[in-house]
Amino acid sequence: MVTDSSVTTIRQTATSLDFLFRPRGIAVIGASSGQTRLGSQVLANLLEAGYPGHIAAIGPAASSVAGVPAYPSLDAVPGPVELLVLALPAPATAEMADAIRARASRRRDLKAVVAIGGGFAETETAEGRTWQQSLAAACQESGVRLVGPNSAGVIDNKNRVDTTVFAGVHRRPGGVSLLSESGSLGEWVALELSAQPLPIGLNKFVHLGNMADVALTEMIDYLGRDASTRAVGLCLEGNAPPLALLEAAGRTAEHKPVMVLQADRNGSGGALQQYGLIRSKRVDEFAMTLSAFARLPLPLGGRVALLTNAGGPGRYAQNCLSDRGLDLASFSASTRAMLAATLPPFAGTGHPDGPVDMTGDVAPRQVAQCVATALRDPGVDAVFHLFIPSRFATADEMARELLLLLPGLKRHSLDKPYFPVLLAGHAVAGARRLLEENGVPTFGSPDLAAAALSAMVRYSLDRQPPAVAVPADGN
Amino acid sequence: MVTDSSVTTIRQTATSLDFLFRPRGIAVIGASSGQTRLGSQVLANLLEAGYPGHIAAIGPAASSVAGVPAYPSLDAVPGPVELLVLALPAPATAEMADAIRARASRRRDLKAVVAIGGGFAETETAEGRTWQQSLAAACQESGVRLVGPNSAGVIDNKNRVDTTVFAGVHRRPGGVSLLSESGSLGEWVALELSAQPLPIGLNKFVHLGNMADVALTEMIDYLGRDASTRAVGLCLEGNAPPLALLEAAGRTAEHKPVMVLQADRNGSGGALQQYGLIRSKRVDEFAMTLSAFARLPLPLGGRVALLTNAGGPGRYAQNCLSDRGLDLASFSASTRAMLAATLPPFAGTGHPDGPVDMTGDVAPRQVAQCVATALRDPGVDAVFHLFIPSRFATADEMARELLLLLPGLKRHSLDKPYFPVLLAGHAVAGARRLLEENGVPTFGSPDLAAAALSAMVRYSLDRQPPAVAVPADGN
Repeated sequence: MVTDSSVTTIRQTATSLDFLFRPRGIAVIGASSGQTRLGSQVLANLLEAGYPGHIAAIGPAASSVAGVPAYPSLDAVPGPVELLVLALPAPATAEMADAIRARASRRRDLKAVVAIGGGFAETETAEGRTWQQSLAAACQESGVRLVGPNSAGVIDNKNRVDTTVFAGVHRRPGGVSLLSESGSLGEWVALELSAQPLPIGLNKFVHLGNMADVALTEMIDYLGRDASTRAVGLCLEGNAPPLALLEAAGRTAEHKPVMVLQADRNGSGGALQQYGLIRSKRVDEFAMTLSAFARLPLPLGGRVALLTNAGGPGRYAQNCLSDRGLDLASFSASTRAMLAATLPPFAGTGHPDGPVDMTGDVAPRQVAQCVATALRDPGVDAVFHLFIPSRFATADEMARELLLLLPGLKRHSLDKPYFPVLLAGHAVAGARRLLEENGVPTFGSPDLAAAALSAMVRYSLDRQPPAVAVPADGN
Repeated sequence: MVTDSSVTTIRQTATSLDFLFRPRGIAVIGASSGQTRLGSQVLANLLEAGYPGHIAAIGPAASSVAGVPAYPSLDAVPGPVELLVLALPAPATAEMADAIRARASRRRDLKAVVAIGGGFAETETAEGRTWQQSLAAACQESGVRLVGPNSAGVIDNKNRVDTTVFAGVHRRPGGVSLLSESGSLGEWVALELSAQPLPIGLNKFVHLGNMADVALTEMIDYLGRDASTRAVGLCLEGNAPPLALLEAAGRTAEHKPVMVLQADRNGSGGALQQYGLIRSKRVDEFAMTLSAFARLPLPLGGRVALLTNAGGPGRYAQNCLSDRGLDLASFSASTRAMLAATLPPFAGTGHPDGPVDMTGDVAPRQVAQCVATALRDPGVDAVFHLFIPSRFATADEMARELLLLLPGLKRHSLDKPYFPVLLAGHAVAGARRLLEENGVPTFGSPDLAAAALSAMVRYSLDRQPPAVAVPADGN
């Protein structure tokens, strides 16, 4: 037991991972010309992100790199350096071990290193392993946390930190955090979040590389405790995650959703499910489901109101829902009456006859009214609303009417998710941006929206107390 | 047998459907202000499409509508009117029956009517059925073909005809023709084709509405004979297509691919497969598979070379392929040697060890060389190339290198499909456009590319002669 408690002590006293995400002062080594392109991409990302703290470049024979003040050594950087980005190939890091020790002991400001160069243990050579051990030892002795080596970097959009080597990942903060075992799989997901009409807000992105110090388990615990992270996306290489990782992810999943994407996606999902983790087999579904979890209230059940202004796509959407085990809600008599009063006589007013087919003749105001009516019905857990532009309702008009009605609904505390699915592509991009900018998440396909909704329903039902709840005071 | 042969005779002498797609002169009735918005959308579409023939509007009390010369009656239009677009609600069409008879008998120019107004038999009222019968009878007696009523219209991008009520469908001609039983499902697919970095070329779009005259079976036969249609997309409402339709689609499928999308997508696919039709369950897969069929050579088999510059996404892609029953190709010794000579020492050179992992360090020229090497291997039926931008290769650089190498390959008659899959979104949109503009179809996700490739492999294998071919002269 002595061993166990000592391990716990070390954990508890270890330098916080906070310094990776909101350091006072960042230095980048390896951004000078003639070196790898890694460092210059990091520097460009920090500048583009608008990092508000002090940035320094470290490199030979230049007073500035890309407009950033440059110094000949880590020791020579005057301001605080809480985070050092090491953008050097393995052989060039040997002499940095001493520099890290020196900075940490003399200035006591250095708290974290992100090592993004390659050539370490991942090469499976004795040399590579030695370089990695030497770097890790220097950090450990100095109380400095090490991400990497061979990491693709770290992003915190809220704190405007981007130490990654990626280009094209957006800067919009939000509730989704990504933790990736594979740098390129994580990058792909981050680019997928970026590629929406309005990018899906990214909170943090972490690729841990060779994990010489910070490993997946510690980082997922950290993201679990991170208040601004509302949903965690875990991108794994293999199909058999180690037990410690499953347990850590399971702990987080008790209070916030953890989605798992596996590069080897055909592995068994059984273990994941056992720990309350949600598996996604497609990158597009993974991205949109994370977005839904981060931004929408959880449904209390699986009774879905399906509204459509187009028969064929409505039937297609109904298939998407039933494929995912979701059923159409039965409306109350007053809901049916209100729908009938709002819609043309030949419209459909819902289950059991099918979806609410508002018909292609419906005007934008009536569309919004039907959405509001469905949201108000206590027998409805979620509203799934399919829209295709028609000659009577452009997407922009419909979006504006929704934005007039939805805020009023919020005051009525209608805490259930609304899934507007706008078909298709360029024709509705402006309307989707308008809704998103006003806090209404949108979807581009019923397949993706149904995947997101069904994941939310399962997550919600799994976490609901048994029908007879025990009062909090134990009586 | 008398009945049968007489039916055949009528068919053969019926006015050609060509007049729907390349009429000399189009008149639109119902585009004046105060009427439905249908006609003005049609007029706007015809103008935007750049229809080169004579356009006339028919309506009361105006000398022009939207800049188009207007006349008080069909009879009064001076130029040839081979196609009449009837954008009127059912009650207003009653008096058009005589006008159609009169124009057809006196001027002998009217050959086809597209009736896009509603209120006919689809209302399931006696009145609606009467109006439809009256319109259909006038057309039939006059030798005029009728599309509709309650049609969403017809598009021919090559001939710059667009009589639809849609907005946002692109104008780029190509090899894909869509025939839709559901107007809105067809519109969705057309918008999906439009929403790519470069729109997927659309040949013809047809929605037949209530099918009082031209029905799905005749139209699919027409598209089967249409030389410029390379792939047919059939969008169906229900899940039990009638036998005559299956037979007609099957006839077309003997010489060009016919894909089927069903709004009720969970119906049995067995009947479709029996007639050689290819079912798609998702709109995105349907669109990208049609695109592949229309633009890529058919693979002779299912041996796929998988190339990637990113490990995780490469493994994901390998899963996409194996999910669809596709295997990795075994390379020849010379292919392996060339790949090894081109790539860094730690790169993977293919099956059985996995995909060709070119690594993130590979330069654009080497990427293109590896693609060329894989295409040249006689043991490879298709090349599946996953690319994510890296610090050593932007998507634009890679696209340019491919365009330098691929034309040279064409001269060597390497008639096999190449699937470049560029991840992701905005970051690669420019490169995808560049490749597409130069005749190289691209894909945005390995899921969609694998769906397309597997459909092509199945179609190709189903149509190959038995292993021992009988010589053409029967010896």
